Amino acid sequence: MVRLVLPHRVPLSPLEPRACTALAVCHKEAETTWERPTSAPGTPKSPISQMNSLPTVNGFHSSGSLSHHLETSHMALRKTSSDPQSPGVGSPTRRQNKESTITINCVTFPHPDTMPEQQLLKRDDWSYCDYFWADKKEPQSNSTIAGFDIILVKQLKGKQMQKEMAEFIRERIKIEEDYAKNLAKLSQSPLAGLEEGTLGESWTQVKKSLADEAEVHLKFSSKLQSEVEKPLLSFRENFKKDMKKFDHHISDLRKQLSARYAAVEKARKALAERQKDLEFKTQQLENKSTYKTEEDIKKARRKSTQAGDDLTRCVDLYNQTQSKWFEEMVTTTLELERLEVERIEMIRQHLCQYTQLRHETDMFNQSTIEPVDKLLRKVDPNSDRELWVKEQKTGHIRPVDMEL
Amino acid sequence: MVRLVLPHRVPLSPLEPRACTALAVCHKEAETTWERPTSAPGTPKSPISQMNSLPTVNGFHSSGSLSHHLETSHMALRKTSSDPQSPGVGSPTRRQNKESTITINCVTFPHPDTMPEQQLLKRDDWSYCDYFWADKKEPQSNSTIAGFDIILVKQLKGKQMQKEMAEFIRERIKIEEDYAKNLAKLSQSPLAGLEEGTLGESWTQVKKSLADEAEVHLKFSSKLQSEVEKPLLSFRENFKKDMKKFDHHISDLRKQLSARYAAVEKARKALAERQKDLEFKTQQLENKSTYKTEEDIKKARRKSTQAGDDLTRCVDLYNQTQSKWFEEMVTTTLELERLEVERIEMIRQHLCQYTQLRHETDMFNQSTIEPVDKLLRKVDPNSDRELWVKEQKTGHIRPVDMEL
Repeated sequence: MVRLVLPHRVPLSPLEPRACTALAVCHKEAETTWERPTSAPGTPKSPISQMNSLPTVNGFHSSGSLSHHLETSHMALRKTSSDPQSPGVGSPTRRQNKESTITINCVTFPHPDTMPEQQLLKRDDWSYCDYFWADKKEPQSNSTIAGFDIILVKQLKGKQMQKEMAEFIRERIKIEEDYAKNLAKLSQSPLAGLEEGTLGESWTQVKKSLADEAEVHLKFSSKLQSEVEKPLLSFRENFKKDMKKFDHHISDLRKQLSARYAAVEKARKALAERQKDLEFKTQQLENKSTYKTEEDIKKARRKSTQAGDDLTRCVDLYNQTQSKWFEEMVTTTLELERLEVERIEMIRQHLCQYTQLRHETDMFNQSTIEPVDKLLRKVDPNSDRELWVKEQKTGHIRPVDMEL
Repeated sequence: MVRLVLPHRVPLSPLEPRACTALAVCHKEAETTWERPTSAPGTPKSPISQMNSLPTVNGFHSSGSLSHHLETSHMALRKTSSDPQSPGVGSPTRRQNKESTITINCVTFPHPDTMPEQQLLKRDDWSYCDYFWADKKEPQSNSTIAGFDIILVKQLKGKQMQKEMAEFIRERIKIEEDYAKNLAKLSQSPLAGLEEGTLGESWTQVKKSLADEAEVHLKFSSKLQSEVEKPLLSFRENFKKDMKKFDHHISDLRKQLSARYAAVEKARKALAERQKDLEFKTQQLENKSTYKTEEDIKKARRKSTQAGDDLTRCVDLYNQTQSKWFEEMVTTTLELERLEVERIEMIRQHLCQYTQLRHETDMFNQSTIEPVDKLLRKVDPNSDRELWVKEQKTGHIRPVDMEL
């Protein structure tokens, strides 16, 4: 399986105590004042020209089609989320304040409004690895299906098609066998077996030619079996097992991502509470300053700093998991893409073998008539009569008049 | 039916009264003193070069093979004749004194010892009209079969062979119809119908090609019926009736010949008695001559003369009938010979039609694969992936890191 060389990722800078104070004081505008992480799994550093490399520069698709695309994802998300407050797969949350990212089904995408440039990993290739990042809402049910699962379904269907083609060839083989059996049987018929002479020889050959035709069709059917049906059936015998492995691998990563996302949301809430408490205690201090209050503020600031550190760790873990999922998505979908190309080539090759065998069958069939034509050209009523008269004649002496 | 121009036959000279006396006195050496008839139905005057003319000169086959041939006829005759005295078909008589003819089954042939030269009516032609003059002893039974009937049996067998060939073709038609039915049915199968893109198009054409093949074999079977089976069946529908007519015609002449032969034998006996009586009375005269005896001798001589006239008429009638039979034998066997040539040509022609149709079938079959090959050459995994990705893609925006 193709392994991807993933770019080195710049780690998030850990929060300093005073930074935490700042956070504590002005956490409302925190998102705008902080320095954002520059790199993301979707914006790798090394180019993809072959299957196992990634592009340097960010490409950019017309933001129109882009925002449209995100819009549909968003719609799907809106419909599926029964309770926008509770995070997790199937009921994702979206943070509405002016951020540059948007999280759908626990996967974080760049925000449509502040879209960074993105170049396709494999430009002009319509590669699986470029078009299945979002989940898709199922037509009737409220659930969504992962982009990766759509590719898996395609693979399993392909395997099924190949199996059905083998079945079809099997049916054709049966038809040829029956046809050959009937021709061989008829060629043994005694009908007109008593015809004599050159005509008799021609007729015998007509009958024999049916046995030859039968041979040709039997050969066709047995070659169909060994050169078309069997290869189609035996190609990738434990394919479904392999697909299951891919499926489990990727969906496990998605589950892990959901768990990490839930942890981030929890840490975010906790930090918010700590910050509220610190603010309240700081206001108390302005009214009447006592030693007791000073202590409370110190304590609240420590707890707030701790909550900040927790959130930072959770976000870092989440990003690591998402990055791992991204990596596996690219390598696995590229592998599935390779397998599909292989399948189509294999089937094409064996259908060509089928037409080749059909062609040969017609050619061989031609040759079964030639000896008949040859003998028919030799048919001669006079020599047939000579043959028959020689063995059947009763007497050539003609009668004469009787005498007195 | 070919009519033969038969040669003029020299009539037998009628017996004079005094000739009768001579006959009466020296009837023992009669055969040697009399002038023999020069012509016979078997020795015609005009040549046969075409079917309806006869040869001038008498041909002669090596008397070895000849006497051998007559010997076998004779053997047959010996075995069949239970009572040599009573004449008639199936129990012929043979006159053993040094005559130049021999009568077998009431047909008179030249005697092997005094064989006149005979040329074949149709030299080098192995024509029916030259080789079936004698009757043939049936293998097991004691009866004989007329040479003509052997030809008739051949004709009826030929008709039967032609009928059986039609049956054989009928069977072939059924086989083709079944084959076509099965191919057409399979081509309608939904198997692998969900295959997509260029591969899907090729597969659809593979299925369609089976319907095309079915068409080709259906066409083959229907042409077999109209251009081979039907013509063979409808050729000479009332052939057997025609053969019966020939059969009756010729066998009636043979029966007439037997009757005439019996009459000859009877007249011969009567004459012999009259001659004995005359001789007796003549001797009486030498002893004592009286008027009474003179009268008796006159009376006996008159009766003897009358018996001679009777015999002459009977022999003449016999020869006329044999000549008529000879005539009809030649014309009818030549007709049967023509019919057999016609039958063989007809069958040859329709078997050629069969091979022609088989040939065309193989050619048309070839053409059913061409469109499949054309589409298989166009199969392209990349364009198939593009097609599928375009309609199935979920999103090309890649995930990015989450921020704090």
